[in-house]
Amino acid sequence: MTKVLSFDIGGTKIAYAMIDEGGNFLNEIIKVSTPKTAAGVVELLKTTAKGLEDKIDGVAISTAGAVDQEGTRITSYTGNLPEGYNQTDFVALSTKPVLVENDANSAGWAEFSLGAAKGCRNAVILTLGTGVGAGIIVDGHLLKGKSGAAGEMHFPIDSGNKRICNGCGQPDCFESFASGTGLNTNAHEYMGAEATSYDVIRGLRESDHQARAAFDKWQDYLTKGLIMLANIFDPEVIVLSGSMAKFVEYDKVSTAANAKILTQPFVLKEAVFENNAGMIGAALLLIDKLKHKS
Amino acid sequence: MTKVLSFDIGGTKIAYAMIDEGGNFLNEIIKVSTPKTAAGVVELLKTTAKGLEDKIDGVAISTAGAVDQEGTRITSYTGNLPEGYNQTDFVALSTKPVLVENDANSAGWAEFSLGAAKGCRNAVILTLGTGVGAGIIVDGHLLKGKSGAAGEMHFPIDSGNKRICNGCGQPDCFESFASGTGLNTNAHEYMGAEATSYDVIRGLRESDHQARAAFDKWQDYLTKGLIMLANIFDPEVIVLSGSMAKFVEYDKVSTAANAKILTQPFVLKEAVFENNAGMIGAALLLIDKLKHKS
Repeated sequence: MTKVLSFDIGGTKIAYAMIDEGGNFLNEIIKVSTPKTAAGVVELLKTTAKGLEDKIDGVAISTAGAVDQEGTRITSYTGNLPEGYNQTDFVALSTKPVLVENDANSAGWAEFSLGAAKGCRNAVILTLGTGVGAGIIVDGHLLKGKSGAAGEMHFPIDSGNKRICNGCGQPDCFESFASGTGLNTNAHEYMGAEATSYDVIRGLRESDHQARAAFDKWQDYLTKGLIMLANIFDPEVIVLSGSMAKFVEYDKVSTAANAKILTQPFVLKEAVFENNAGMIGAALLLIDKLKHKS
Repeated sequence: MTKVLSFDIGGTKIAYAMIDEGGNFLNEIIKVSTPKTAAGVVELLKTTAKGLEDKIDGVAISTAGAVDQEGTRITSYTGNLPEGYNQTDFVALSTKPVLVENDANSAGWAEFSLGAAKGCRNAVILTLGTGVGAGIIVDGHLLKGKSGAAGEMHFPIDSGNKRICNGCGQPDCFESFASGTGLNTNAHEYMGAEATSYDVIRGLRESDHQARAAFDKWQDYLTKGLIMLANIFDPEVIVLSGSMAKFVEYDKVSTAANAKILTQPFVLKEAVFENNAGMIGAALLLIDKLKHKS
């Protein structure tokens, strides 16, 4: 049974565990604060991998940022990680094989391999959190693009210079409407400057009209994005993950989107894996690669 | 040298010629009016193929409509072709191997194999005509989706129920802004009810302000679509083909789009092949398939 050490590297926490080819955790997940320097991050990964070297077949890393086709280095933007982290020589972290992959891609691969998109050949896994990320599966392969940056969910979905996207800096961008941040902006617009997305969700339960309007607007823009993804990719399934996924009215949104597409109907599902999808997906990508080579 | 008979099936004309593996035409292209019935179309294809049977290795067909993964049958919508055409048993048209592919996909494959996207692994070929079509190449493969319908360029790009798309029936759709039909609508909006896209193009040459405004609006929406495609696919190149492609200000549009994307810069190019791209691409797809099998 192939086993790998898998890391999930975030701006505030780094999580890791050993994972087998069935996606099972072989120990409890360990979480530590992300070191403040790139050298600190490298040291942490190296020392941890070294300590487990005789128990593992490789090291998998799920991270922010675009990752090259070979799964060896970061090619761009890594958000709130320490300066210099982009230059990390991941392959040198262990004597065992190392694979690094973008976190949204890793999470998508987990859902495709063992989760809500299992058995599909074409799937989009959208992560709806502070921002919006996507892992896209085309004919059983991860969509990477020329520099590994494919799947950026930033595109104009409105006009009139509405909002400015935190992610891409552009107005009218999908992310600024369909993310948790987008729902928060709707809260301000419909419920007052002090209101937040939490007030929207609570208001929904209390049948508050303003909360309903704020939420419907959020779902309308999400639906617009799903129409685009369904028409462009013709996927069997679109999976929603991330902190916002549990609030989506799946039947309603799915019916609205499927009524407006030219391709064949898709199924809208909630993700199976939660916060650990990235660790699992990166582990499975590495294990697939190891098996393919042997 | 492998040679195939290749058809381009349109609502008004059917064109055909023999094409070799270098994409060369081995005879002058023959054009005939599209028969009024599906049986008439089948008869035309069958008789033509039969007459050339001893000179060809297979029959390729570029057509409207989504085509299945195997390249054997149409799975949906074929626009203005005769009723019943969708049910055509293409494989039965000849004793030689037959391959059918969607026209936008075929045109995309021609540009990818021998045209403006040659040497790329990830490319989008947009056809800007009455509507907008796309052939999308992902890591050297044609993007097909679960039912062969992927690449439908229909997605909301605005709000406020502006326009209704002829292709998908929805308001605010990309096609209704970035197609030739879209430019025509801009002509009405900026230059009066009698004006057409031809007046816009002529007005541009005469530095007419209203024509410039109508054209800039058209290019702005095209740019929005390019931003989406670049962020989603991270392609090396986006190629523009179709009747509108020659009017695009490539440097201006490319600079505007590349300034707003999160992925690495893409190159914007005009297509090499014109009206015959579909015939060439379908022929090359079949020849690739024949070689792969032997």
